Amino acid sequence: MAEGGAGKRPRGAQVEDRKVDWRRWKQERKAETKKWKEMKLLKKLDKQRMRELAEQQAQTQEEQKEDRGETRVETTTALEIFLKRKPVIKAKKEKLLFPHPACTLALCQSQSTTLWCLSPGQQHTLSVALPGSILNNAQSPALRSYLAGQIARACAIFRVHEVVVFDEHGEDVRSVEGDFEGVGKKGKACVQLARILQYLECPQYLRKSFFPKHEDLQFAGLLNPLDSPHHMRMDEDSEYREGVVLDRPSKPGRGSFVNCGMRKEVQIDKQLNPGLRVTVRLQEPQNPEAKVRKGTVVSSQHPWTVSGLYWGYSVRLASCLSAVFSECPFKEGYDLSIGTSERGSSVDQVTLPSFRHALVVFGGLEGLEAGVDVDPNLEVTDPSVLFDFYLNTCPSQGSRTIRTEEALLISLSALRPHIEEAVKTPKDS
Amino acid sequence: MAEGGAGKRPRGAQVEDRKVDWRRWKQERKAETKKWKEMKLLKKLDKQRMRELAEQQAQTQEEQKEDRGETRVETTTALEIFLKRKPVIKAKKEKLLFPHPACTLALCQSQSTTLWCLSPGQQHTLSVALPGSILNNAQSPALRSYLAGQIARACAIFRVHEVVVFDEHGEDVRSVEGDFEGVGKKGKACVQLARILQYLECPQYLRKSFFPKHEDLQFAGLLNPLDSPHHMRMDEDSEYREGVVLDRPSKPGRGSFVNCGMRKEVQIDKQLNPGLRVTVRLQEPQNPEAKVRKGTVVSSQHPWTVSGLYWGYSVRLASCLSAVFSECPFKEGYDLSIGTSERGSSVDQVTLPSFRHALVVFGGLEGLEAGVDVDPNLEVTDPSVLFDFYLNTCPSQGSRTIRTEEALLISLSALRPHIEEAVKTPKDS
Repeated sequence: MAEGGAGKRPRGAQVEDRKVDWRRWKQERKAETKKWKEMKLLKKLDKQRMRELAEQQAQTQEEQKEDRGETRVETTTALEIFLKRKPVIKAKKEKLLFPHPACTLALCQSQSTTLWCLSPGQQHTLSVALPGSILNNAQSPALRSYLAGQIARACAIFRVHEVVVFDEHGEDVRSVEGDFEGVGKKGKACVQLARILQYLECPQYLRKSFFPKHEDLQFAGLLNPLDSPHHMRMDEDSEYREGVVLDRPSKPGRGSFVNCGMRKEVQIDKQLNPGLRVTVRLQEPQNPEAKVRKGTVVSSQHPWTVSGLYWGYSVRLASCLSAVFSECPFKEGYDLSIGTSERGSSVDQVTLPSFRHALVVFGGLEGLEAGVDVDPNLEVTDPSVLFDFYLNTCPSQGSRTIRTEEALLISLSALRPHIEEAVKTPKDS
Repeated sequence: MAEGGAGKRPRGAQVEDRKVDWRRWKQERKAETKKWKEMKLLKKLDKQRMRELAEQQAQTQEEQKEDRGETRVETTTALEIFLKRKPVIKAKKEKLLFPHPACTLALCQSQSTTLWCLSPGQQHTLSVALPGSILNNAQSPALRSYLAGQIARACAIFRVHEVVVFDEHGEDVRSVEGDFEGVGKKGKACVQLARILQYLECPQYLRKSFFPKHEDLQFAGLLNPLDSPHHMRMDEDSEYREGVVLDRPSKPGRGSFVNCGMRKEVQIDKQLNPGLRVTVRLQEPQNPEAKVRKGTVVSSQHPWTVSGLYWGYSVRLASCLSAVFSECPFKEGYDLSIGTSERGSSVDQVTLPSFRHALVVFGGLEGLEAGVDVDPNLEVTDPSVLFDFYLNTCPSQGSRTIRTEEALLISLSALRPHIEEAVKTPKDS
């Protein structure tokens, strides 16, 4: 239908023209995406190699411990602390490799594996552990994703700093190594849960940089956003922002450019590898006409530990229940651990002690007992001995069962006043 | 791996054997615990009944007034009580027809519209009100249903006795009259929410009697069951059971037959119309060989008010926020009302007074303000004046928004210890 057919079906012709354009546009975009993905894969390999090199260097020279308030610690330290506190656990050190690069790297390259070390007077942290197998209880792939979204929302609402997804059944013990190919309806639930949790934690404007299309994220578009303080809108004013280092040359002696989801790019104080996720502390704009904003790179824990701003959670995979404790990213380990169970004592009478790093552990369909039974490092059958407190957070419940995604909201809400009371008096280190 | 494979991999075989033993041991232990719990419950019930008998004897004169714990009252009473307590509300009595048969009858014929009237010493009740419009925020028809299922589960977990679905936008003002034709993706959210709530509250074995196929219930099969005490399995032993009167002739002077979801039918003490939903108190079987069990019909509130067993919730539609109060099914009205809002005062410092009928009201996407603005009976703009307490149940939240389905679990969990403290000292009537 020629354009010269003036008057006759002009509308239809327009639509057809447009259709062809769209198709071409799509093909072009696809080709671009493919190229981009290939580039990213190359970058990923490069980065991994770099990081491994860096790790080797770090092991040989232990003197560079301090890096912006963070300290790297040996896994054995955390494990030993845990073992000292809980003598019931039979140590199998060879099984507990940490930091395991595959744990977080294979899921999302942006997550750092650096360990926290709070100095006295700084904010406490709250960690939550739950089995990934709860996803297998969902009735459809969409609801499976939705369930993961519920977990992410609950963690954001209660300002959880670390989510540990543990393998209750010991099925995916090896799934923290190698490449992850995503899941069908069943299986590999831990990895899928962890991936969706990371996806939702990442600010929207950074997702296309860190999360290539993946089967696990098929229904991620249906999930409710976290709407947490670090998920900034474009024109929102904030001291801190999450960003990705851009692949753009900058003059020697000047820092890299970072996309922080604002109209202007941010030039930071350091030269960093493109593609890295960074937390930027923005400087007050000196000149509103300037083409870029200025900022300094800080640790991702900075907004919380220094300014008390909730800045999302990190995600960790644990191959069994005991690994939740032994692979703790905090130097001192968790100094307050709470197990939740119907068979625990009532939360109402509890008085929690002052703490630095609290951990709340949830069971799956079969309770915490399932994780204890399967774990090769645990010689106990009663999960209550693993924790400082073993609490029933919903006494006199009107349903025979409470699902883990419900338990998260119920328990964290019930524990909140107790936790707030406990952290009023900071713990001496 | 056969057990006969002597010598070969004996360790593996042992482990396998042991595993099986453990499972069996656990099952046995579980069964024991269950039995023990049931015994405990029975003892508790016995004790409670004894206490109530003593109380009843003390109030011999009042007995005539009551009809199995229920009394029908005029709506105006409840409205007047409410108006007396809250002078800010402009009465428009002609708009507040109650009991409106369409409210519950058109949804499910089984629900009685009788009003409660607790005698002194009986259990308190907890009502929850929320706008039906929250369903319109769901991303797909399946998730729309799932959301309704989340509400139902939260109500069951926290032993809610009445769920009021109110129309926040005043769109469906007329939808409480006439036939309900179900919904598409949008609109008529109140009715759909109420219908799904009723569907999930109904024991599984009665659903085909009361819920014909309906578009609103298209995804009801995906929803998580309530698993509450009145959802009995076939061979479960219980003092009470929900049932449907069967269309089967019985001899004159004898009662009707009722299907209570057991292997045997139950013959009750009355002749009732077939198709009616009834609560039956079962007699101890005198003769195990008998073809039918014997039972007496009691009020659906009986298991809770007399034996303290949570027996599900009733569902009520309200055409606006003020109707939540004015159409209260309790003679005395709600004597404790709590509004939940981010802008309320912290729940931690609150001390709730003793009460008989508590109501907790939740807002939708736009908070309780939306319901107040639209309501023709309310002359205020600040929702806090409507309630005895206006509480923030999740101080220092890490997400900018809390969804109503999350707020339900969070708030009821935060309020639970306060409510339990308040009902320890029963209120004088």
